Amino acid sequence: MTESPVSRPPLSPTPRSTVTRYRDRSATDRAALDAVLDAALLCHLGVVLHGAPVVLPTIFGRSGDTLYLHGSTGAGNLRAAMTGDVSVAVTVVDGLVYARSAMHFSMNYRSAVIHGRPVEVTDPDERLHALRTVVEHAAPGAWDTVRPPSRKELAATLVLSLDLTEASVKARSGGPGDDADDLDGPAWAGVLPLRQVWEPPIPSADLAAGIETPDHVLVRVPARAPVA
Amino acid sequence: MTESPVSRPPLSPTPRSTVTRYRDRSATDRAALDAVLDAALLCHLGVVLHGAPVVLPTIFGRSGDTLYLHGSTGAGNLRAAMTGDVSVAVTVVDGLVYARSAMHFSMNYRSAVIHGRPVEVTDPDERLHALRTVVEHAAPGAWDTVRPPSRKELAATLVLSLDLTEASVKARSGGPGDDADDLDGPAWAGVLPLRQVWEPPIPSADLAAGIETPDHVLVRVPARAPVA
Repeated sequence: MTESPVSRPPLSPTPRSTVTRYRDRSATDRAALDAVLDAALLCHLGVVLHGAPVVLPTIFGRSGDTLYLHGSTGAGNLRAAMTGDVSVAVTVVDGLVYARSAMHFSMNYRSAVIHGRPVEVTDPDERLHALRTVVEHAAPGAWDTVRPPSRKELAATLVLSLDLTEASVKARSGGPGDDADDLDGPAWAGVLPLRQVWEPPIPSADLAAGIETPDHVLVRVPARAPVA
Repeated sequence: MTESPVSRPPLSPTPRSTVTRYRDRSATDRAALDAVLDAALLCHLGVVLHGAPVVLPTIFGRSGDTLYLHGSTGAGNLRAAMTGDVSVAVTVVDGLVYARSAMHFSMNYRSAVIHGRPVEVTDPDERLHALRTVVEHAAPGAWDTVRPPSRKELAATLVLSLDLTEASVKARSGGPGDDADDLDGPAWAGVLPLRQVWEPPIPSADLAAGIETPDHVLVRVPARAPVA
């Protein structure tokens, strides 16, 4: 989640990554893209394997204008991602929009779709930086507390980088967009907001005695009164 | 979310939809597939457009062994889904797994990936059933309270059905799988569970006077004491 120190090139969506439906919901600035990526826990990676699409969920990290992916050197989808274009979708759902008519039900969301051709990261320092970025994306503050990857683990790991330029961002917020004729209908209309909440941590059954839950974990769990 | 009344055919994954990594995390029974689909709010639909993958988030519904998708008749990705194979990924994240070594960090999740060739639904009754299924998947209990689709809305809507047979399910739960040598390391290890929580409903600003929030909305919001 480090930022580039200098001015960053604008997003340059191509036709395939340009929002065509509900264009008023689209954004093309990098800050919007960063915000969506940083708010999401995982992405959905799409590749073409034997002529057909394959979509799989996977964790990722962002460092400046680069998206990092990793996986086993034996993973077919990652191998396909090195020899052909990919589409990476990142979606955060913020709520459900209840309308007065069936066809106006909607979601509030923030989403990003990135296209491009990932490249394998081979430089040892960048590989370690990428893996750190991925772990810190999911678990901020954790990397410096754990055993780093061993030589054997690194040899079994494929690291890919994807340039975050051919990308688009789309978001919806606010209430329903019912037709004027439906506004006096009998149905309730509004938004049911959705939030992802971390629950209290569950220590591993084999956790050594004396190891307290660290602040970088505790800080994620909202303070709550007991459920009534 | 209706169930077939008779015995249902087993899932028949092909090579592309067979879990190859961490096979012990895979399931092939329909009940597991149903549970993942019913727990998720949206899916990620992957198609091939001009030779490259495109992944987009979209809502969906399940009726027995059929997945329904819908969208504008002008949506390029839905048109592509009628002329080529698709991959539909449905993912529910249940928690983050903190390990004692960087490469053992993981997610707890339930996921399904479905492959196949969707077909356009043209029968008027099935089209309405499909749209009802999609709305009720997102907003159970809402369909019967709202204005149904008009003729004009139906004409602008493409409805696709995808057979839920070429599918696989994968899930991870439980604590970290650290190497034995790392168990006495200094890092905290355990699970930080993640839950999606509906927040109290926000009525539309233009809601007519006298319309109360209905039970089918209220029942989704957990009772909570105020945040301390």
